[in-house]
Amino acid sequence: MLRTFRLTIGYDGFRYAGWQVQADLPTIQGELQRAFAELTGERVSITGSGRTDSGVHAIAQVASLTTDAWRSSDAALGRAINTKIPDDITVYRCEEMPVDFHALRDAVGKRYRYQMQIGGVRDAFDFRYFWHHHVQLDIEAMRQAAAMIVGTHDFACFQATGSERKTTVRTIHDLALTTGQGRAGQGHLIVEVEANGFLYNMVRNIVGSLVEVGRGKHPPAWIEELIAGRDRNQAGPTAPAHALFLLRVDYDVQPLAAPQSPR
Amino acid sequence: MLRTFRLTIGYDGFRYAGWQVQADLPTIQGELQRAFAELTGERVSITGSGRTDSGVHAIAQVASLTTDAWRSSDAALGRAINTKIPDDITVYRCEEMPVDFHALRDAVGKRYRYQMQIGGVRDAFDFRYFWHHHVQLDIEAMRQAAAMIVGTHDFACFQATGSERKTTVRTIHDLALTTGQGRAGQGHLIVEVEANGFLYNMVRNIVGSLVEVGRGKHPPAWIEELIAGRDRNQAGPTAPAHALFLLRVDYDVQPLAAPQSPR
Repeated sequence: MLRTFRLTIGYDGFRYAGWQVQADLPTIQGELQRAFAELTGERVSITGSGRTDSGVHAIAQVASLTTDAWRSSDAALGRAINTKIPDDITVYRCEEMPVDFHALRDAVGKRYRYQMQIGGVRDAFDFRYFWHHHVQLDIEAMRQAAAMIVGTHDFACFQATGSERKTTVRTIHDLALTTGQGRAGQGHLIVEVEANGFLYNMVRNIVGSLVEVGRGKHPPAWIEELIAGRDRNQAGPTAPAHALFLLRVDYDVQPLAAPQSPR
Repeated sequence: MLRTFRLTIGYDGFRYAGWQVQADLPTIQGELQRAFAELTGERVSITGSGRTDSGVHAIAQVASLTTDAWRSSDAALGRAINTKIPDDITVYRCEEMPVDFHALRDAVGKRYRYQMQIGGVRDAFDFRYFWHHHVQLDIEAMRQAAAMIVGTHDFACFQATGSERKTTVRTIHDLALTTGQGRAGQGHLIVEVEANGFLYNMVRNIVGSLVEVGRGKHPPAWIEELIAGRDRNQAGPTAPAHALFLLRVDYDVQPLAAPQSPR
């Protein structure tokens, strides 16, 4: 009998060539599909809610797979996969879903986090997870610019050139800039952004453009012009991948039973 | 003119064979000495407050060097070394000290942190920095045992076999067990221990013995017998290195001028 499972997965993207399977390169999807094949002898496609790029991390990516090769419980599947994957990938939850559940098609929203350090010395631990700016940024100006991005807009200006989507209209529900301090007193600036969907490289392009405003290269109102112009070449550079985390993917579909944590 | 500098250093020990220089293996001391030689042409010995083992991390290790080859400020030396060392080592501060300052001999106290995860699933990020226990631990019993370790005792039972110190008496000022939660709700248990000095492997042996109590293999009072018996072979196993952080080293000697942070 065909069954569909939803996996909630965390990974440190540092040593991976991104989510999607590639020949001869380590990828998250590749590790998961190999693990499932080792467990069941069956080669399935494990579909992510979206691809994450090389170096991007996930606190809770979601993926789905449909199979008739797993006869035990959903929680047991999560535990079994965890025994077959590297330490820097974790299946936090595995839940059986309606058989037509599809992690990409059914996603209704996502939240990302982007981490920056401003000033101070490079940190032996944080360098893996923060984009380090040696100059100060005007955070108030960045917040004004961010407010213009929230809402429903055509975000073609923040889409990687060469990518093709039917529509480039998305709704950003939240775009919050939070300041804090690192262990050694370094200034941290955290950007969190939530939308009903994201174009390819959209978060990193938004952050890159906000940083242009923070550096004083453009006034906050430039963001409105950018969005109206729909031209990727006018936007700021793409922010580096290593500071981006996929935090959450939302679905309206419910699991068949109460979720259980693998352990 | 001979000058002495104190370096405050953080490092992620993950890919290092410990503090002390070894032929053909990456070490923290080796990276720092190589960086200084590249900057000045002079090969100096950079003395740590103590060796940390392979895999052990530091939030603030302290080291000293005496040289007549540096003509600029202390802060400039910190900045210059940071340009020559790998990203997973950071010089947070560099201060000029009285010329006879010696990071090992003058240390009057240290504080360490040991991180454990109890139950839950292995975490894609935390696995590098936590010792993961799949069974529950009796934390109240561990706290009772910890209270017997605080104070001035002969700690021969917690010294790695084969190491030689003039005296194995040390004073532990604080030994605190704190519980908390990880990102995915995992149970965390953090042990912090502060003393006027530590024997080789002492923190990891204390943690290993506390865990034996937490597992119910011995009652808390066993710790008193252990200390009285002075026999390493009676203590618990040495806890793994990857979850240990050197937090702080204390000195009575003051820098020549107010400390400056390199940036």
